[in-house]
Amino acid sequence: MYLHVQRLINDIEADEPDPAAANALQEGLGGQFGEMRTMMQYLFQSINFRGPKGKPYRDLLQGIGTEEISHVELIGTTIARLLDGSPRYNGKKSDPLDKPGAGGATPLESALDQGNIHHYLVAAQGALPVDSAGNPWSGSYVYNSGNLVLDLLYNLMLESTGRLQKCRIYEMTANKTARSTISYLIVRDQAHENAYARALETLGVNWASVLPIPKTNAEKFPEVKKLVDLGLQSKQYTFDLTASSEAGKIFQGMSPSKDGTELDATEQAPGGVPSVIAEERYEEFSPGLDTDLLALIQATADLEMAEMQPPLYAPVPATTASKRAG
Amino acid sequence: MYLHVQRLINDIEADEPDPAAANALQEGLGGQFGEMRTMMQYLFQSINFRGPKGKPYRDLLQGIGTEEISHVELIGTTIARLLDGSPRYNGKKSDPLDKPGAGGATPLESALDQGNIHHYLVAAQGALPVDSAGNPWSGSYVYNSGNLVLDLLYNLMLESTGRLQKCRIYEMTANKTARSTISYLIVRDQAHENAYARALETLGVNWASVLPIPKTNAEKFPEVKKLVDLGLQSKQYTFDLTASSEAGKIFQGMSPSKDGTELDATEQAPGGVPSVIAEERYEEFSPGLDTDLLALIQATADLEMAEMQPPLYAPVPATTASKRAG
Amino acid sequence: MYLHVQRLINDIEADEPDPAAANALQEGLGGQFGEMRTMMQYLFQSINFRGPKGKPYRDLLQGIGTEEISHVELIGTTIARLLDGSPRYNGKKSDPLDKPGAGGATPLESALDQGNIHHYLVAAQGALPVDSAGNPWSGSYVYNSGNLVLDLLYNLMLESTGRLQKCRIYEMTANKTARSTISYLIVRDQAHENAYARALETLGVNWASVLPIPKTNAEKFPEVKKLVDLGLQSKQYTFDLTASSEAGKIFQGMSPSKDGTELDATEQAPGGVPSVIAEERYEEFSPGLDTDLLALIQATADLEMAEMQPPLYAPVPATTASKRAG
Amino acid sequence: MYLHVQRLINDIEADEPDPAAANALQEGLGGQFGEMRTMMQYLFQSINFRGPKGKPYRDLLQGIGTEEISHVELIGTTIARLLDGSPRYNGKKSDPLDKPGAGGATPLESALDQGNIHHYLVAAQGALPVDSAGNPWSGSYVYNSGNLVLDLLYNLMLESTGRLQKCRIYEMTANKTARSTISYLIVRDQAHENAYARALETLGVNWASVLPIPKTNAEKFPEVKKLVDLGLQSKQYTFDLTASSEAGKIFQGMSPSKDGTELDATEQAPGGVPSVIAEERYEEFSPGLDTDLLALIQATADLEMAEMQPPLYAPVPATTASKRAG
Amino acid sequence: MYLHVQRLINDIEADEPDPAAANALQEGLGGQFGEMRTMMQYLFQSINFRGPKGKPYRDLLQGIGTEEISHVELIGTTIARLLDGSPRYNGKKSDPLDKPGAGGATPLESALDQGNIHHYLVAAQGALPVDSAGNPWSGSYVYNSGNLVLDLLYNLMLESTGRLQKCRIYEMTANKTARSTISYLIVRDQAHENAYARALETLGVNWASVLPIPKTNAEKFPEVKKLVDLGLQSKQYTFDLTASSEAGKIFQGMSPSKDGTELDATEQAPGGVPSVIAEERYEEFSPGLDTDLLALIQATADLEMAEMQPPLYAPVPATTASKRAG
Amino acid sequence: MYLHVQRLINDIEADEPDPAAANALQEGLGGQFGEMRTMMQYLFQSINFRGPKGKPYRDLLQGIGTEEISHVELIGTTIARLLDGSPRYNGKKSDPLDKPGAGGATPLESALDQGNIHHYLVAAQGALPVDSAGNPWSGSYVYNSGNLVLDLLYNLMLESTGRLQKCRIYEMTANKTARSTISYLIVRDQAHENAYARALETLGVNWASVLPIPKTNAEKFPEVKKLVDLGLQSKQYTFDLTASSEAGKIFQGMSPSKDGTELDATEQAPGGVPSVIAEERYEEFSPGLDTDLLALIQATADLEMAEMQPPLYAPVPATTASKRAG
Repeated sequence: MYLHVQRLINDIEADEPDPAAANALQEGLGGQFGEMRTMMQYLFQSINFRGPKGKPYRDLLQGIGTEEISHVELIGTTIARLLDGSPRYNGKKSDPLDKPGAGGATPLESALDQGNIHHYLVAAQGALPVDSAGNPWSGSYVYNSGNLVLDLLYNLMLESTGRLQKCRIYEMTANKTARSTISYLIVRDQAHENAYARALETLGVNWASVLPIPKTNAEKFPEVKKLVDLGLQSKQYTFDLTASSEAGKIFQGMSPSKDGTELDATEQAPGGVPSVIAEERYEEFSPGLDTDLLALIQATADLEMAEMQPPLYAPVPATTASKRAG
Repeated sequence: MYLHVQRLINDIEADEPDPAAANALQEGLGGQFGEMRTMMQYLFQSINFRGPKGKPYRDLLQGIGTEEISHVELIGTTIARLLDGSPRYNGKKSDPLDKPGAGGATPLESALDQGNIHHYLVAAQGALPVDSAGNPWSGSYVYNSGNLVLDLLYNLMLESTGRLQKCRIYEMTANKTARSTISYLIVRDQAHENAYARALETLGVNWASVLPIPKTNAEKFPEVKKLVDLGLQSKQYTFDLTASSEAGKIFQGMSPSKDGTELDATEQAPGGVPSVIAEERYEEFSPGLDTDLLALIQATADLEMAEMQPPLYAPVPATTASKRAG
Repeated sequence: MYLHVQRLINDIEADEPDPAAANALQEGLGGQFGEMRTMMQYLFQSINFRGPKGKPYRDLLQGIGTEEISHVELIGTTIARLLDGSPRYNGKKSDPLDKPGAGGATPLESALDQGNIHHYLVAAQGALPVDSAGNPWSGSYVYNSGNLVLDLLYNLMLESTGRLQKCRIYEMTANKTARSTISYLIVRDQAHENAYARALETLGVNWASVLPIPKTNAEKFPEVKKLVDLGLQSKQYTFDLTASSEAGKIFQGMSPSKDGTELDATEQAPGGVPSVIAEERYEEFSPGLDTDLLALIQATADLEMAEMQPPLYAPVPATTASKRAG
Repeated sequence: MYLHVQRLINDIEADEPDPAAANALQEGLGGQFGEMRTMMQYLFQSINFRGPKGKPYRDLLQGIGTEEISHVELIGTTIARLLDGSPRYNGKKSDPLDKPGAGGATPLESALDQGNIHHYLVAAQGALPVDSAGNPWSGSYVYNSGNLVLDLLYNLMLESTGRLQKCRIYEMTANKTARSTISYLIVRDQAHENAYARALETLGVNWASVLPIPKTNAEKFPEVKKLVDLGLQSKQYTFDLTASSEAGKIFQGMSPSKDGTELDATEQAPGGVPSVIAEERYEEFSPGLDTDLLALIQATADLEMAEMQPPLYAPVPATTASKRAG
Repeated sequence: MYLHVQRLINDIEADEPDPAAANALQEGLGGQFGEMRTMMQYLFQSINFRGPKGKPYRDLLQGIGTEEISHVELIGTTIARLLDGSPRYNGKKSDPLDKPGAGGATPLESALDQGNIHHYLVAAQGALPVDSAGNPWSGSYVYNSGNLVLDLLYNLMLESTGRLQKCRIYEMTANKTARSTISYLIVRDQAHENAYARALETLGVNWASVLPIPKTNAEKFPEVKKLVDLGLQSKQYTFDLTASSEAGKIFQGMSPSKDGTELDATEQAPGGVPSVIAEERYEEFSPGLDTDLLALIQATADLEMAEMQPPLYAPVPATTASKRAG
Repeated sequence: MYLHVQRLINDIEADEPDPAAANALQEGLGGQFGEMRTMMQYLFQSINFRGPKGKPYRDLLQGIGTEEISHVELIGTTIARLLDGSPRYNGKKSDPLDKPGAGGATPLESALDQGNIHHYLVAAQGALPVDSAGNPWSGSYVYNSGNLVLDLLYNLMLESTGRLQKCRIYEMTANKTARSTISYLIVRDQAHENAYARALETLGVNWASVLPIPKTNAEKFPEVKKLVDLGLQSKQYTFDLTASSEAGKIFQGMSPSKDGTELDATEQAPGGVPSVIAEERYEEFSPGLDTDLLALIQATADLEMAEMQPPLYAPVPATTASKRAG
């Protein structure tokens, strides 16, 4: 069972809208080696896992799989921000409703030669479950052979390919919104590479100096370097609410990336940042409410809610939380 | 950001393996109107949501979307259980490793005329991200127009179609494992129908007597009746860890299904049941470990874990929890 | 612009339901060489046609394309009839509503091992836009190179392949419902083979004795023989409402099939037979109306309609029509 | 059974070629919510319709479905016109054959950065059965649950989404050829929204002020306003040749769009305009005939046709027609 | 550049037709981890290879890729043989032409419940480029990241998964035709596993005891054991006509499978067996020639060919060949 | 069984990188009428061929199919060369490793508006198995009806469409690298048109003046003219290693293209040119080796290979070869 907290797993830096960068990031969301794929692959591998003795391996898969849902949320939100307002259409603030084509104007003209016209025509300047060439995500991507060694080997290759593609995306755009998320994912993909490589090490494999893949020197990617300096590539959160995860039995010891750091799986989750709801885009009829409907929405917003029952799961008391932050 | 708890959202009743029923359930998992679709659709609608004034609607989408992840987990696990052991292959317990084709035996022969041969050939008697006709799930299923009224209308239709198909699946099999999950999802789909119908009611729509769709009388489906008697079709959990959700501003008042119940969104999450790891299937080489590798796995399982840092989110103290259970 | 008449282009013989035959016929509806494909291909070739001098060729494409829409209607209806009632579920006539799973019954159990479970789970015992292996019809099937010789060559191959597959379907089932439509389409496909072969003859090609493809002797297919004896393989209707079609400039002279008949394009349309609306299937919740909704439907059915304005197109006066029938 | 008349359902205004606009319009032709989809969906819903008492609903579906075939023809022709001549290649008129690459020229160079290179490479500057991102149309789009309320709900959502996307396309281009067709379809989509909304009203639903979707004020789209002023959004033709349609029992009364108009289903079909065959494009080898083949084509064009037999269906006598035009 | 010799790479044992086994083998031909995939993947990796210093790695990919084309030929032929005659239709030998449905017979009736009806309806009892669930092979399967370590890692996983699936197919059928090819491919897949594992060993990786994957004991698969005893899992042919391949620099030393054998890449190609042309199947109209056409075919067969020019590549002189056979 | 020689079937002229041209060429590689399709179609037609009397036809298919593998290699290599270095990134030669994003640079920026971003993001500036609109190659393209006349007719249409599209590509770019390969393939496609047209002539068909399709006058395409002057459109190689092919019984006599040449099938294979391995692209991490791994690669390259066993197939002795070259 899953629960949600209204926070993004990492902060997204502000910058100009950039639909071309948004389209490149679609590969990281809906591409064959993107976050929707890792998320679904690990969830299926957890669900179908065989061998009660292998619980630490199952828990590792489950934990990384849960993180990937938050990555889908993060990269999806980043794409939406890069697209938001990209046609630079400005309706009158005083009377914003229902003016998109006023006087025959063409506020969405720029959509015709962007990376993916569907971002404007179908998705109202939002993220799509497709790759950067417009192919819809497919269930045929999910790999789950049931054979543990093979699944680990595949996952190592999958994370490395995801990281390789994100390194290439980094080199395609200097937009800060795009780079803040891409850099974070480059580092987290390395953490996951380390996780699967380490899992194979527990079965005897020795990786010598082939990891990480690709062999990049973080110093060349400044935004990445900052995160590596914090050791984020050697940490794996459990994302587990009741401390049942045994992933830490695998994710410990020296990093297979041979960067001198030690693997650490003792944290539950990163702190994250609050998530924000995007503004309306009148030229997209999104959300497309007129005065009547807005009044009804407002009435709903003004309602009191019934008193909540006590929660099953909750933030830990402040004293504990502050200890951690410190 | 998402967190996980190692519990299934609902119990799965035990019964004989039944690969034909498993295949029918695939429609509910990977079909065009199945749980992977609702999950992805609501996650995208939450991510791309526009209009800060509409927060209660966004939170409703977010909460249902989070529940759908747990439904993917539930129906996936159900399919895996229905498949598990379906070829009735029994290796020697004393020396179980590596004997699948011993003496030229054909332990997987029955796979040739099951619903989907991939359940044996590709997925090691586990669930697949495909529908009951074998089509892989596709990102092109996800609908997110950005227009709030349209998205709500689509979601109402989506939940109703999912429920319609599950009612048909109910009539295809009497297997208890299959029916326990299908019945639960029939009722939860109705809860989600109610949620979207109610959201449209806040915008003025009156549904008269067309809901629920399909118009079924739960008395005819005994397993469903039990859950309806508990009012499960009129409850919506927030699945929100920090009580930020405003979904309860919409999900209250009399049910649009006109069954005389009142909508209730005051609980965070159902209690669920512990999840269990499946047994090995030697004939599938899953997980496929021999004596050497098993010894290494055991060594990992015997390891101590480093001490965990204090969690960000945690079960509430026993006193509160017991109050709720009561 | 297109108009419709509530008649089927050919009669469908009554017989037992037969879901396996229905599934085989799906190839003729939604397969790569089925009626949806010919219909779409010729409509696109008509729309995109270049060269005003080639009007007779365009009109030939347009006329055959229009016929194919009626073939989609015919084979779709045939499939729906073959499926209708195939689970042999009989609700009480006195209280037919809402009893599908009454007492835990499994009225749709047989769906689990039919040709395509989607016929029951998705389509309520109706036709689907897929082929006999369950693949959805794809726009990538449509061929329209713009080069006239190539398009004619492709169309000749397309009709021949369609006819080849239908001959194979004929040999798969003795069901009379299935065979009555398959036999009709075998003969009409030959008429279309003749049309495209003849169009290439006007450009100089000589087919010697390679036509028709496949080389079958109608005497071996009794239902086909009856239609061939009526000369249906050598007739092409214009399906044109204002007698503007010049297809008859091509479709005349001796048949390229070398069967001694002469091609004839002087008729507008066959007479057809009235179409009938199928009965409800309660176990499918189709149409799924309860007493309240049925009463409302009835109220609609009882309404008077406003007086129609004079039609633009209409059946010809009885005197002319009788002349033709004679 | 279907018949054709060599007229387009609406006029297409002349303007410059515009391949970018042509590509945007592909969404309206081959997109998930385009005309091929509505056409196929309603044809399947008509074929598979259950419940003889529901004939007015079936006839409504059948009539709109027939109109959609003409919309496919209209938007396909519009796309072809927008593409025609877009590379601005001008062969010598005196000797036009076979000069595309003369002297090594690159007349199709501009194809390399247009919306969809297939318009030039595959389709000879003609329309394709794909969407604006190049995805082929898929049979998996067709929705036909068999449940009447659900099918009507889906169709309402489908027409609204189609209209939403066309409003967005309107804002992407000021090309008159594109806008004349897009505006016509925006208005016709609203008529179909009204049809399905009204059908649900007969079952008791009350739409309050949520329709039409999207909520646009036609005054902002001048070309749309002209058509709305003519009341085209409140008219539904039967497209039925023998006055058997009972759709008018549903499509009457005040419009669910609450624009003060009354629904009217008393006309058979609009008048339309004559269709025209496009010119040859030598750089595409389309139709690709040389002097020899052209002479043979001419010989065919010069042939007399055999005398036609009396038609089954025909334009009504002039006196009646003039009455209507008045 | 490629050349062909009219020999199959391995012998196919004779047995009864078995369409269910044929369908299972389709996974090995057109599945995501089948021979079409390995073939295409290695050809693309060879074509796009970067780094002149890495020639031994490129040559290894090229050699294995070439072998995979012969595997496509082998498994395709095996499937065709398993299907051939499976409906057991026996036309009169004296007058075999054109009698498939004679007297209304249904010689293809059994096609309705076979693994894939397309084997009869589309492919004339021949192999198809699809997997065992009927999904067409897709170019999206091909993996070629350009990163050498990743490509090798993927290829190792690919071969292991192919071998895993073939071990499962082995357990699905005892048909000798099926097993002779499956066993051969199990052993050759292991040879390719060894090749990629060894290539990674040259970069420092140590596989300990995880190989081969799956860990099977050949003694349990008697047909496999025979080939393993011949050392076929430790041999890699160059398939190179001019002895330019440097693959032998990698494929040497002790096997990574730790079975005590030494890798050997000193042979060019196996001897193979002559290929045979299948018999006609009248019920499939394949090849569908009547008396006239057969006479023309015969005339062609009787023709003399012009004298061949000296070949560029040719079998080596008998003396050398015999030395090798010894 | 297939063998390979490390030579390209035709020379590729050097010119500037040109990613737009590369993308157009993808249609010729992975498009519905490209080389992967012809290759797979003819291989399947050879494997599934029925009718031992038809051996010359089978051998014709086999020979052309084998040539198509070399065409895949040729056009794939051409695309890779057109892409190679197109972002014009120049790392420091002295320390080329690991500097792609040095100082925050964006060396792959240009990828954002190229024909297919996957060329940079997925394929490391290499060829992809997709068409020019980015659709992955599909097994559903392969046509193999089993009916000989139909298969020949389809193949004739297929080669003609391939040639038509390549003529259009020729007109899209003046890049010499692109044109050298496109021109060669235009001529070879005509040779294959001739082959299938001639095969149908042996069955009695007379093509009059419709061939070749499209009707182009080679003089307008200078690079094509050179090859036509060499008679390359009237030659078909056997690509057969043991002179078993009987294709020459069909491929002889006057060309069906009516260009006055005589068909000639007496050669085994063209001479070709040596193939070359591409340079590293650091910005793509391809092959992505650092100093450590490069040292290991070098160690492998320095190894001696074990002595090769005598080859089964080999280049013919120098004397014969020189005779041919002369």
